[in-house]
Amino acid sequence: MKSEFEFIQNIKGKYSLNKIGDDCAVLPKDDKTDLVITADMLVEDIDFRLEWTTPEFLGHKALAVSLSDIAAMGAEPKWGMLSIAVPETLWTDDFVERLYDGWHNLAAEFSVELIGGDVSRSLGKLVIDSVAGGEVGGCEAVFRSTARPGETIFVSGTLGAAAGGLRLLEDGERFGENLTEVDKSLILRQLQPTPRVDLAKILQSRNLVSSMIDISDGFSSDLTRVCEASGLGAIVNNIPADGDLLARFSSAEAMPLALHGGEDFELLFTVPAEHLSEVRRLPVRAVGITSAKVGVIELMDGNRRSILEAKGYRHF
Amino acid sequence: MKSEFEFIQNIKGKYSLNKIGDDCAVLPKDDKTDLVITADMLVEDIDFRLEWTTPEFLGHKALAVSLSDIAAMGAEPKWGMLSIAVPETLWTDDFVERLYDGWHNLAAEFSVELIGGDVSRSLGKLVIDSVAGGEVGGCEAVFRSTARPGETIFVSGTLGAAAGGLRLLEDGERFGENLTEVDKSLILRQLQPTPRVDLAKILQSRNLVSSMIDISDGFSSDLTRVCEASGLGAIVNNIPADGDLLARFSSAEAMPLALHGGEDFELLFTVPAEHLSEVRRLPVRAVGITSAKVGVIELMDGNRRSILEAKGYRHF
Repeated sequence: MKSEFEFIQNIKGKYSLNKIGDDCAVLPKDDKTDLVITADMLVEDIDFRLEWTTPEFLGHKALAVSLSDIAAMGAEPKWGMLSIAVPETLWTDDFVERLYDGWHNLAAEFSVELIGGDVSRSLGKLVIDSVAGGEVGGCEAVFRSTARPGETIFVSGTLGAAAGGLRLLEDGERFGENLTEVDKSLILRQLQPTPRVDLAKILQSRNLVSSMIDISDGFSSDLTRVCEASGLGAIVNNIPADGDLLARFSSAEAMPLALHGGEDFELLFTVPAEHLSEVRRLPVRAVGITSAKVGVIELMDGNRRSILEAKGYRHF
Repeated sequence: MKSEFEFIQNIKGKYSLNKIGDDCAVLPKDDKTDLVITADMLVEDIDFRLEWTTPEFLGHKALAVSLSDIAAMGAEPKWGMLSIAVPETLWTDDFVERLYDGWHNLAAEFSVELIGGDVSRSLGKLVIDSVAGGEVGGCEAVFRSTARPGETIFVSGTLGAAAGGLRLLEDGERFGENLTEVDKSLILRQLQPTPRVDLAKILQSRNLVSSMIDISDGFSSDLTRVCEASGLGAIVNNIPADGDLLARFSSAEAMPLALHGGEDFELLFTVPAEHLSEVRRLPVRAVGITSAKVGVIELMDGNRRSILEAKGYRHF
């Protein structure tokens, strides 16, 4: 079966589409500014489960995933649109109002304005399409395709917490029910992620990064995307697994979640040598280095070397 | 139960949203240009049925409904995004490729570029969110809220054909199966509507109209929206029911379809007296006049007068 990435590559080639394939499309806005736009679809029982979340968390997350895409371009979010297909049972209570409240509370933090969307009835599941737009200086957007060999690879924050939270939810834990602080923290990373907008803006505005992506499908998959788009390989020697994740799960359970678990919405970016000292002063971790071995991602654990395969989330 | 329009009015007030409520949001682009953006969600078994349409028609229609919103602002479409939640059964054959073909064939007519979107798996129905962007001269977008009393109301083309086509599909007719020319024409108006982009651009660029909307939910509902937004009433004395509709259905069946049937995607617009002669040279029909009787739409049939209620399509 074709993967969703093969499908996107196919239509990109078939119709000569050059704005597709990064976190956002970039369009010229005015002499000094480019517009970036992104769309993310969230489908009930695929991307979320109603019994695991709250309407407010869901509205927050719908916007957060789009703001994270805008952050990954180094852009500043400006507006959003929210389209929803709603089963009648959810329409008749206050679910949709609460979903918009969650959306709006996050939007207010970043001065993002709701400018449109659509409301449709659904006979099946709840489906949300989140669209967001932002701005960045003309020709200053940061792409995933512009890393160069020998640069240092960084990630913001820690990895695997959102996947750890998902594991806890799958195991029957629920937010709000006598959770330990560790479990609560992991579950909140899954249900209410924080887009790294401010950090991305610092990295972009100081011209510190050569490429950037957000970690939405998983570190291994998203690093693979940077390498494929840039025509590079990578050597990874440090996986900053989340502290709560390591506290809650054995190392054998935690490390695959840190390597392949999606939805951390941290930034993954590459830094040329001349900016390393400045970047090291930020709350980020060096995880490896880009290499010229096209398509090969090597994972070093002390002297042991293995190949890191892309095992992050895919729909198809 | 709250209607979707009450819901939108509520969040508009609650969060002081001033870009919501017209066919598109309007944002400043550069010194001379505004950007317009719209989103439309199409849900299986609510907005379309797979056994009634083809993937190509569906892709065409997803874009057509958004281009029609852009036309209604007097803007020129530029780009689109397509997000889809796809059941696995449709993913494994060529359904999605054919849907994109249909989208792209219409896009090519208007030089619209696909710049993004999302592909998600669905455990339930097929859901499509179509987003499109366009451009119009700065402060030159045409709103639905700016009609004035005593202006002439026009519609482009004819009314009710798409609803007539829907009726035929509901009655078991299918496109491609030995249809009469009349039935084929009606069904195509339902499955493959034409957005009135070129006509709208003429009306806007010559500054001929004071307000405009596209007829998506039905003439009665969309005229009501113009009247409510503009603080007016209307007197309607001519309903240009579609010729094929009148040929296929009795007058008693046809007239409600022309008055309330949705998805014709014709333009409804108001024209000040000084532009009437120029507008009458275009392929449009005068249907009535705006009045100062706020919220009252009177329907004149010879000397008989009745009140036209908004009975077009609503999701909730």
